[in-house]
Amino acid sequence: MTIRYKGTAYHGFQVQSNAVTVAQVFQDAVERVFGSRLDIKGCSRTDTGVHANQYCISMKTESHIPAERVPAALNINLPADIAVLSCEEVPEDFHARYDVISKQYIYKLLNTPCRDPFWENLAYHYPYPLNLQLLNDGARQFIGTHDFTAFTSAGCTVKGDKVRTIFECGFTRQNEIVQFSVTGDGFLYHMVRIMVGTLLELCQGKQTVQGIRQAIELRQRGCAGVTAPACGLYLNQVNYQDLRG
Amino acid sequence: MTIRYKGTAYHGFQVQSNAVTVAQVFQDAVERVFGSRLDIKGCSRTDTGVHANQYCISMKTESHIPAERVPAALNINLPADIAVLSCEEVPEDFHARYDVISKQYIYKLLNTPCRDPFWENLAYHYPYPLNLQLLNDGARQFIGTHDFTAFTSAGCTVKGDKVRTIFECGFTRQNEIVQFSVTGDGFLYHMVRIMVGTLLELCQGKQTVQGIRQAIELRQRGCAGVTAPACGLYLNQVNYQDLRG
Repeated sequence: MTIRYKGTAYHGFQVQSNAVTVAQVFQDAVERVFGSRLDIKGCSRTDTGVHANQYCISMKTESHIPAERVPAALNINLPADIAVLSCEEVPEDFHARYDVISKQYIYKLLNTPCRDPFWENLAYHYPYPLNLQLLNDGARQFIGTHDFTAFTSAGCTVKGDKVRTIFECGFTRQNEIVQFSVTGDGFLYHMVRIMVGTLLELCQGKQTVQGIRQAIELRQRGCAGVTAPACGLYLNQVNYQDLRG
Repeated sequence: MTIRYKGTAYHGFQVQSNAVTVAQVFQDAVERVFGSRLDIKGCSRTDTGVHANQYCISMKTESHIPAERVPAALNINLPADIAVLSCEEVPEDFHARYDVISKQYIYKLLNTPCRDPFWENLAYHYPYPLNLQLLNDGARQFIGTHDFTAFTSAGCTVKGDKVRTIFECGFTRQNEIVQFSVTGDGFLYHMVRIMVGTLLELCQGKQTVQGIRQAIELRQRGCAGVTAPACGLYLNQVNYQDLRG
C-alpha cells in the first residue's frame, strides 16, 4: 500500500506505547476493514511532525477483499490527515522496509520575511537570505558513498556501519519555497535534518564547503550543524525493484 | 494592512456575537499592541471556512508605532492561521471596503481519485472528470455586466441592484489542482460558490452553456446550480486606486 500523511499530529510512524503514531491509527482502520488486527510493516521510521508524500506499507492477509477496493475501504476509516493512495498484491516474501532500494526525502523552507498561515507546520519558515549556488556547492559534498557518522544524532540505533550512498542532492526554488531534495540507499536517524541544518549555516557564514567535507571525513557530530526542525521534512518517494520483473 | 488567513477555524471575517471570527481575533491582537480596542474595517465579508490570500483591513489610530513595525508586532499576537503581510499609512478618508475597485477570488478543486491529507480543508475534492474547455465555455458567460440575481442565496442582504461586472473568469489546471479564477467589481452573497457549483454541473451533463446564459437572463436562482463548498474558496486579491496617485 502507498499512503500519504501529514505528520503534525503524530509521534512518527512506528508504534509506541505512550503516544499516537501513524501506524497505530492505521492498524485501527485495518482492524475495522479486515476484521482483525494485522501486523503492518512500514518502509521507514519517521520522526514526530515529519510528513510523507509517499510512504509504503506491507501486510499479510488471507482476506478476499480485492486489492483495488482496499484504498476506498480504508480511507473512510482513516482520519483526514492520512490517506491510502493505492494498494497492490506483492510476492509473499516482500517486506516494505527491507526491500527498499532507494528513498527520496524533500525539505521545504518557506523563504519569506513573514510567516504564512498556509505553510504552518508544512515548511520551516526561514526569513533570511538564501544563496542557492552556495547551498548547492555544499549539497554536492554529500553525493557518493560516505560514512555519515557526523550527520546522525545520539539516538541513532543503527548497529551496522554508517556508510550510505547519496545519489542526488540539491536545492531548487519555486517562488517563496526553497526545496532541498536528497535521494539515497538509506538514511540514519536525523540525517536529512542535520544535512539541512548544516547547509543553512553556509548562508549564515558559520560553515564552509570545505568544513562540510571535513565533517564527513572526521566523522564528528560536532563538526556538522544543528538539526533543522521536523516540520519541513517529507518522505517523498520510496523505490523498490520492479515487482512485476 | 494586508493580511492572509486560513479560514477553517473561523465563522468568516465579520464580527458575530456567537461565533469566533477573524475580525474578533484580529481586534484582540490590535488591542494588545495598540493598548485599546480599535474599530477595524474589512474589505469584504467572507463565509465560514473561506480563506484569504490577500485581505485588506483599515483602521484609524493616533498611535506613533511606525507602520512598518506593525506586522511583526501583530504577528506575535496572532494565531498561526492569521498573518499580517504588510501595513502602510493611507489618507484619512480611506475605507478598506468602500474604496475597493475590484476583487479576485480563486476556487481550488482537487481533481484526484483519492482525497489528499495536504489539501484537507484547502480545496474541494472533486474526483470526477473535468473538461476544461467546457468549463471555460461556461465561465465566459459570466464576463461582462450582468444582473446576478440567479447567482446569489436567499441570505443576500444587498439592498441595491444585483448588477455586477465580471472582468475575468476561467479555469486553469496545475497538476492535480484545477483552479477557477474570477475578477469583478463586486460579488453577491455566495456568488462565486454558486458560479462554481453551476459550472461543475456542465461536466456532469446536468447543465448547458445555453442554460447558464438563460439563468443569468431569467434571474432565477433555481436555474443555476448548487453552492460549492466553502473550503475551496480564497479571496485572492483586492485592488484599490493607487493611493500614491
